[in-house]
Amino acid sequence: MADTIRVTVWNEFRHEKTDQEVADVYPDGIHAQIAKFLNDEGNIDAGTATLDEPEHGLTEEVLANTDVLIWWGHRAHGEVADEIVDRVQQRILNGMGLVVLHSGHFSKIFRRMMGTNCSLKWREAGERERLWVTDPAHPIAEGLGEFFEIPHVEMYGEFFDIPTPDSTVFTSWFQGGEVFRSGVAYHRGKGKVFYFRPGHETFPIFFQPEVQKVILNAVRWAAPTKGPYSDLSRALNYQANETFEVED
Amino acid sequence: MADTIRVTVWNEFRHEKTDQEVADVYPDGIHAQIAKFLNDEGNIDAGTATLDEPEHGLTEEVLANTDVLIWWGHRAHGEVADEIVDRVQQRILNGMGLVVLHSGHFSKIFRRMMGTNCSLKWREAGERERLWVTDPAHPIAEGLGEFFEIPHVEMYGEFFDIPTPDSTVFTSWFQGGEVFRSGVAYHRGKGKVFYFRPGHETFPIFFQPEVQKVILNAVRWAAPTKGPYSDLSRALNYQANETFEVED
Amino acid sequence: MADTIRVTVWNEFRHEKTDQEVADVYPDGIHAQIAKFLNDEGNIDAGTATLDEPEHGLTEEVLANTDVLIWWGHRAHGEVADEIVDRVQQRILNGMGLVVLHSGHFSKIFRRMMGTNCSLKWREAGERERLWVTDPAHPIAEGLGEFFEIPHVEMYGEFFDIPTPDSTVFTSWFQGGEVFRSGVAYHRGKGKVFYFRPGHETFPIFFQPEVQKVILNAVRWAAPTKGPYSDLSRALNYQANETFEVED
Amino acid sequence: MADTIRVTVWNEFRHEKTDQEVADVYPDGIHAQIAKFLNDEGNIDAGTATLDEPEHGLTEEVLANTDVLIWWGHRAHGEVADEIVDRVQQRILNGMGLVVLHSGHFSKIFRRMMGTNCSLKWREAGERERLWVTDPAHPIAEGLGEFFEIPHVEMYGEFFDIPTPDSTVFTSWFQGGEVFRSGVAYHRGKGKVFYFRPGHETFPIFFQPEVQKVILNAVRWAAPTKGPYSDLSRALNYQANETFEVED
Repeated sequence: MADTIRVTVWNEFRHEKTDQEVADVYPDGIHAQIAKFLNDEGNIDAGTATLDEPEHGLTEEVLANTDVLIWWGHRAHGEVADEIVDRVQQRILNGMGLVVLHSGHFSKIFRRMMGTNCSLKWREAGERERLWVTDPAHPIAEGLGEFFEIPHVEMYGEFFDIPTPDSTVFTSWFQGGEVFRSGVAYHRGKGKVFYFRPGHETFPIFFQPEVQKVILNAVRWAAPTKGPYSDLSRALNYQANETFEVED
Repeated sequence: MADTIRVTVWNEFRHEKTDQEVADVYPDGIHAQIAKFLNDEGNIDAGTATLDEPEHGLTEEVLANTDVLIWWGHRAHGEVADEIVDRVQQRILNGMGLVVLHSGHFSKIFRRMMGTNCSLKWREAGERERLWVTDPAHPIAEGLGEFFEIPHVEMYGEFFDIPTPDSTVFTSWFQGGEVFRSGVAYHRGKGKVFYFRPGHETFPIFFQPEVQKVILNAVRWAAPTKGPYSDLSRALNYQANETFEVED
Repeated sequence: MADTIRVTVWNEFRHEKTDQEVADVYPDGIHAQIAKFLNDEGNIDAGTATLDEPEHGLTEEVLANTDVLIWWGHRAHGEVADEIVDRVQQRILNGMGLVVLHSGHFSKIFRRMMGTNCSLKWREAGERERLWVTDPAHPIAEGLGEFFEIPHVEMYGEFFDIPTPDSTVFTSWFQGGEVFRSGVAYHRGKGKVFYFRPGHETFPIFFQPEVQKVILNAVRWAAPTKGPYSDLSRALNYQANETFEVED
Repeated sequence: MADTIRVTVWNEFRHEKTDQEVADVYPDGIHAQIAKFLNDEGNIDAGTATLDEPEHGLTEEVLANTDVLIWWGHRAHGEVADEIVDRVQQRILNGMGLVVLHSGHFSKIFRRMMGTNCSLKWREAGERERLWVTDPAHPIAEGLGEFFEIPHVEMYGEFFDIPTPDSTVFTSWFQGGEVFRSGVAYHRGKGKVFYFRPGHETFPIFFQPEVQKVILNAVRWAAPTKGPYSDLSRALNYQANETFEVED
């Protein structure tokens, strides 16, 4: 457990180059800010990858050396190549953790892993959100209070079209009258997936200590388990461990 | 609840035309046999669709008039067109039930709905399987005993790469030493999905009363809930039900 | 499924006799009002039982003839005899449904079934509650819209100390800033348990159509499954179905 | 995470004093053997407590200084005082981990935490058990292969009357024809509970490396999360974080 966790922070990285308002908040990109606060921790080594790099920065080699992948996308989900989505999915099912943030709910990889639309209601009014801890036994809730608030957010509301979570760590309240399962955890194959609602390209949410703490906890939780199976993609013809007779 | 449930039994329908051994057991196809025992029940109206029909028999109209789709495939999963898989997935998320049988575990539609590989171990030795009821409160266990046996089966063994089930209704024991989660139930969007392990193209498993009973129970359980939402594919901009002020 | 469902509505029935404000809303007791709207449905036969009857009205015979028990209690949870709680628990584990309403969260029987404190935050300010459907595939959501509101309620807020639900059918929003898992469903043994938050002794909540619809749906969902096992209280020495040799 | 985990291994400790066959396998008691292999690990400090000590060795002070409690009992479950069960339950709900072994399934504390009978089928024939990993993403599966075997065991078979597990880490196969959910994990309140089937008073199961590895993994997994809530026993009147107006 004391091993270094190798994180790759993936970002679409378009807004930051075309929209001054976004660049003012995240001058080096959202990915750089996330990698920065993770690298401030011991035992975490965070690099980055972005959409416009070759293979979106997610080569076989990069993925083989990634323990946990963090995913941020917004407007260009459709530009992510299906082959890369296939590759990332297989890497997750073989043990890599995946942490999906905010508008990443509509990314190809999250919808692929969930098997559902991952649709929701939304509103950009800058209202207040209060995230309640609804599974205080979960390691992702470590170090938090009973709730925390984010002063200005884009609202996401139920029904959130996702599978029944293994754990719903956070449930949000919004000023406008909605609720949302804001932190949901899943085992998938040999890997783990966590979706975390907060985040935005212009609200400075990834500078907020509670948000950083949750992402940090999620990274530690999602790090691979060194257990059985290294390739779950095939169905194997299997010889019996027991001898038996087939009766008529 | 007294409404008629409209079922479509989908079958790849290739084995039966090319392999005499299969045709001897299912002369009109596996789909015909399944539709037959369902149509013997009151309040169920079962039709069929097969791979080689136009649009695999799964037109928009057929799906719009299907409450529960039963899926059997084996060797030709790859020939199912992705557009049809997309269409079936959306219909499920909007309320249609899906019951997947045996080798359908590797169908495109089941893997799509699960988000995982759905891989497993297998062996064709004709050994004995004993299915234990592991959720006796579930309606799919209605009318069964503590277990039932199938005398000759193809074995499927764990690890079965599927998401955590909402319920594991059956767990199987095999002579050769394996176990398997043989009946697993999921809510997905507004729809329900049930995977049931038994079935084979040459063993006469779909003639066995307990197997028929489970499929019948599964059809009743998976029939659509008349609740909210008719299209979960899009994220809607949503006006607040509450008036509120955004504070600085 | 067309069989009549026999319901017993249990009520503490103290408030109504001592508090004029409660008697004004429920002159014959909360139990009478709930039994009344259930009896207006076809295929439901609802009777009542109250704390001050012998054995709290829950004799072996009454329970043997009850398919679904509805529970309302508030101030006198401690007066329910432990023997009766034992008896009700065993009847549930052997198949009877249990629907617990509002302040019944702190009843002995609900805490017994959950194994947790079932504690929560509360406030009596008469604020507005909005219940969002968070599992539209669940039969308990049948016939409802995306949400419904109750104009004046006692607030219950998270953390609600309950086990991970099998399904969270409703999640509530409150004006004062809290959220709550307001409709939670569980399988326990051969029986089913549903907790539904709405209800109060002076707000006329059990006259509201959506609330009545949910309770009705819950009764239909919780009706017993006719499956295996009639007594789950004992561990039985079990003879093997397979012959085997023990090796050194 | 590098903090020392303080474990208390609780044992009924009767068999070992009265039955020579048991004493031959566990001369200092099962608790001593379990504490021994845990103390061989870094960062674990394991002590013991037994039934015949004052307060069964589980004083307020002992529990306050216990991060994870391991429970073994067999014949004397009924002698455990209800006050101590109450105390242990509250400590778990406030964060302490609980690991229950083998015949502890029928202990008062496990049945209290589960809310069910925890009954099962059993047979003492010394047959072979094969435990399959059915959740390879779970940290309790760390370091294991696809399955492991125990050569001679007492069989436990389904239906195991427990709540739907948060995770079923292991599922067992037995020579005589049964299956069993042999490693099941739960969050309860702020605490975690793991039940692990293997173990026996005369078979030397707690000397087997795979069994020791699972118990060690379970201890690490069940160690308390330092999150919100220090007392979940009471429902608190809660002042709103939002200002609001109650409308007519």
